[in-house]
Amino acid sequence: MTQPISRFPVPPRSDLPDELRERFDAVEEKSGFLPNVFAALSWRPAEAEAFFAMHDALMDKETPALSKADRELIVVATSAANGCLYCVVAHGAIARIRARDPFLADQVAVDWRKAPLDERMHTVLDVAVRLAVDPVTVTTADQDRLRAHGLSEDDLWDVGAIVSFFALSNRLTHWAAIPPNDEFFLMGRVPRA
Amino acid sequence: MTQPISRFPVPPRSDLPDELRERFDAVEEKSGFLPNVFAALSWRPAEAEAFFAMHDALMDKETPALSKADRELIVVATSAANGCLYCVVAHGAIARIRARDPFLADQVAVDWRKAPLDERMHTVLDVAVRLAVDPVTVTTADQDRLRAHGLSEDDLWDVGAIVSFFALSNRLTHWAAIPPNDEFFLMGRVPRA
Amino acid sequence: MTQPISRFPVPPRSDLPDELRERFDAVEEKSGFLPNVFAALSWRPAEAEAFFAMHDALMDKETPALSKADRELIVVATSAANGCLYCVVAHGAIARIRARDPFLADQVAVDWRKAPLDERMHTVLDVAVRLAVDPVTVTTADQDRLRAHGLSEDDLWDVGAIVSFFALSNRLTHWAAIPPNDEFFLMGRVPRA
Amino acid sequence: MTQPISRFPVPPRSDLPDELRERFDAVEEKSGFLPNVFAALSWRPAEAEAFFAMHDALMDKETPALSKADRELIVVATSAANGCLYCVVAHGAIARIRARDPFLADQVAVDWRKAPLDERMHTVLDVAVRLAVDPVTVTTADQDRLRAHGLSEDDLWDVGAIVSFFALSNRLTHWAAIPPNDEFFLMGRVPRA
Amino acid sequence: MTQPISRFPVPPRSDLPDELRERFDAVEEKSGFLPNVFAALSWRPAEAEAFFAMHDALMDKETPALSKADRELIVVATSAANGCLYCVVAHGAIARIRARDPFLADQVAVDWRKAPLDERMHTVLDVAVRLAVDPVTVTTADQDRLRAHGLSEDDLWDVGAIVSFFALSNRLTHWAAIPPNDEFFLMGRVPRA
Amino acid sequence: MTQPISRFPVPPRSDLPDELRERFDAVEEKSGFLPNVFAALSWRPAEAEAFFAMHDALMDKETPALSKADRELIVVATSAANGCLYCVVAHGAIARIRARDPFLADQVAVDWRKAPLDERMHTVLDVAVRLAVDPVTVTTADQDRLRAHGLSEDDLWDVGAIVSFFALSNRLTHWAAIPPNDEFFLMGRVPRA
Repeated sequence: MTQPISRFPVPPRSDLPDELRERFDAVEEKSGFLPNVFAALSWRPAEAEAFFAMHDALMDKETPALSKADRELIVVATSAANGCLYCVVAHGAIARIRARDPFLADQVAVDWRKAPLDERMHTVLDVAVRLAVDPVTVTTADQDRLRAHGLSEDDLWDVGAIVSFFALSNRLTHWAAIPPNDEFFLMGRVPRA
Repeated sequence: MTQPISRFPVPPRSDLPDELRERFDAVEEKSGFLPNVFAALSWRPAEAEAFFAMHDALMDKETPALSKADRELIVVATSAANGCLYCVVAHGAIARIRARDPFLADQVAVDWRKAPLDERMHTVLDVAVRLAVDPVTVTTADQDRLRAHGLSEDDLWDVGAIVSFFALSNRLTHWAAIPPNDEFFLMGRVPRA
Repeated sequence: MTQPISRFPVPPRSDLPDELRERFDAVEEKSGFLPNVFAALSWRPAEAEAFFAMHDALMDKETPALSKADRELIVVATSAANGCLYCVVAHGAIARIRARDPFLADQVAVDWRKAPLDERMHTVLDVAVRLAVDPVTVTTADQDRLRAHGLSEDDLWDVGAIVSFFALSNRLTHWAAIPPNDEFFLMGRVPRA
Repeated sequence: MTQPISRFPVPPRSDLPDELRERFDAVEEKSGFLPNVFAALSWRPAEAEAFFAMHDALMDKETPALSKADRELIVVATSAANGCLYCVVAHGAIARIRARDPFLADQVAVDWRKAPLDERMHTVLDVAVRLAVDPVTVTTADQDRLRAHGLSEDDLWDVGAIVSFFALSNRLTHWAAIPPNDEFFLMGRVPRA
Repeated sequence: MTQPISRFPVPPRSDLPDELRERFDAVEEKSGFLPNVFAALSWRPAEAEAFFAMHDALMDKETPALSKADRELIVVATSAANGCLYCVVAHGAIARIRARDPFLADQVAVDWRKAPLDERMHTVLDVAVRLAVDPVTVTTADQDRLRAHGLSEDDLWDVGAIVSFFALSNRLTHWAAIPPNDEFFLMGRVPRA
Repeated sequence: MTQPISRFPVPPRSDLPDELRERFDAVEEKSGFLPNVFAALSWRPAEAEAFFAMHDALMDKETPALSKADRELIVVATSAANGCLYCVVAHGAIARIRARDPFLADQVAVDWRKAPLDERMHTVLDVAVRLAVDPVTVTTADQDRLRAHGLSEDDLWDVGAIVSFFALSNRLTHWAAIPPNDEFFLMGRVPRA
């Protein structure tokens, strides 16, 4: 898979503002590669900064009723509904690792309704996917169902904000035609030796 | 219209981090009131900072092929497709002012196809609305049609990024049920004395 | 906004049959202007007569469970679902006046589900919009829900007949591309001096 | 099939205003039975008068580019798209008689795209069905395609007005649950002896 | 109606493998004509054998909770949802004969929700049509509703398998543009002398 | 993943008719495991025989313009459109092996429009997915586009028949809730040592 990283220009890393370059170096060191969305956004440093700040505020977070794995599965389900390959593959990989489950991300991507998740997560995904594809239909009754499954007000906001953030991310990725890095496809599928 | 500003907590302005509070004070001084989306986002300062940074990077910009008014009309058309009252009313108000036209925002909100716009803007809105509601259908051919109407690569990115950003904004606004401020409904409808 | 009144011929008023011409004169005298839909239909006098007769039979009527303002809001909600600018703007104007509320028509046009209406009107609009856009899904259970909110059999018929009449009106207006008169955009938005 | 004629009251014929009663008697004498839609509308004489006046103005008309049979097929195709049994069965019967073809109405009701019609009628039905189910998508280019097939401005209006009128009729029929008379099911299927 | 039997080659009967030819002869003798789907499939004998074997295993079967007529109505409702003229007309004819009712097939084809069927069959058709057009939405709760109406596990499988088989049949018929034989249109509409 | 193989009874292999049992043994020996769809169908031997006969007639076939890999990708794209996990995962695995490409199946499952395929396969998938989800829209013009890419009449039939067969397979798999075997998830993702 040797498709270009973006339909738009990708500047050399050395041209980036210090803050972005340092963030990119850190991600690359930790992951072993730089996810393409970083490179694709870098020609717009202000937008890239904002994008990653919002991402981290919502995704690097673990609460009793909404784990990091749960958050990744929201991304997988809603990105699949939007046909966004990058987000399904990259966040599917992270979901496999976070959930320590090699099957769950594919199950959620193709048919979350039959995925082996608890009632709480089925409700989360039902509301999340509707907010992603038909937002007018989401009501306070939906939010009350989430509260009944133990989500706090902060968790509730996070569900909506994650869906919203990836509504942005899915469309920008479609627009720039950003492909997932090859590494993501296999991550979390085979047990570490 | 005395609906609450958000379904989530709204902290007193004095509790906000300095940077946000100063931004809010400046907006309020300039506009005469604080748009509700500012107050509604303020309980999440990091997300609020990122949100307004991305907004300003995309919307406070005028290029030969994509004016500030054009950008607002993209917001109006796609937000109407998502049934987002706040964005239709607030950005409809700004569009009326930017375009110096008391009718155009309502025309675009209800039926952009018949709105009295040039071919360039009809193409922009056709592509923008599809990216908003059915993103997999947008192709490089669509982008080439925009280039043929004189949009630069930067303009092209902006079209996609504005649609993407308001895909986020529409959903977060639905989720928190943020109403437009009363002031927006009348702005730009009557000639200034 | 100087778009033509119709894609089809518009005869001079002096050529109209007496009955139509008198009706038009009376409307113009009362409103201060002749709504474009009158002029646009006048080349087909028999259809115009039938159209206005049916309109008046359904809309100029006030009952305990279905006020004139309620009837206008049914028109606004279903016409918005059909993207009909003329009907949204003209009947939005009348709704503002009938309801003595400068905000409600825009709220109903963009997102009736969150509009500050009572349970009765939420049920009315839920059923009305489905009858407008997906009529096979409406059932006797829907009609029973309306009866439970106090609607009489006459009110019930009126709900269905109003939706049906504006299903006609929206499509004919699209077909002839009839624009709303400029006057409608501002009516009912500013308190009378 | 002994379903009631309407969910709403049906007054005895003797209670009707003279003009309606005479119209009903004439129809019954000519057809051998009174189509249920007449009886179902009769509790609202003003609406019934307007309904039949508009119907006759559009349907009892033959032009070089839009025959009576063509008009009935527009009704069949759009009513099938709306799932309206009464209109599909009653106007299917009339279409079989007008077109002297025992198969065409069923072909058009189930899959007009493959029905053995000329290019003109395929274009008419393509535009008509879109106006019926998704009216915002119909453009002046669609109308130009109809003109290119020889439709006059009057024919063009009639296409739009027939679709619009049956958008009303389909919904009112759903709302009142008016069943087709038994007689319609077999009309035009067997050659007259 | 003299459309070709298929867009693909139709071999002479004498060229068919013995087993298929004997089946065709038997069907023709019993029905008085050979349904076009037999001829259209015959250029692919292995597929034809499998097709008719699966058809007979599901349709030539009568159980207390799912009669032969019920099975035909499932075909009519789901084939109508897919716009498949051949299946609606041919299985509508068989349904009229099996149910000894000249109206029911047309009622189910156009608007099964209002057809005069018992609660069991309304539930069957509700689930069947969703499985046909939007299969991800069908759940174990739907299957439990069918069990509550007395369907056995075998009946339940048959409902799903009939819908599935005609999902195949409808699409293959569209692809080859197979028209119904003229004989089907009138079958079961007139009482036998 | 230890979900049951089916919502319906699964008989022990020893109870199967000889022909089926031998087929199952052969598949198991060749693949190393028995795909769950075999076990799930085995309680209905006649349907199972027909199902596998039709499958093999369409899929075990290589022609100049439609390779075995191409056929699997048609299955992946249309099964993804139907949200069928079993078919996406199982046939995705086979597609990876047939195409000797560890990425292509995921690309086609999530967003076939951007998958790195030639024009011929883009056209094949465009037509195939429409035949799967909206069969009335497929026309002879679509078939001519496939012929222009070199597909023979036999290839053309196969495209339609594969889509049709998996329309059946997807629905039956949803109905019985058949999960993919664990083995499929990883097949073809890692180079053989």
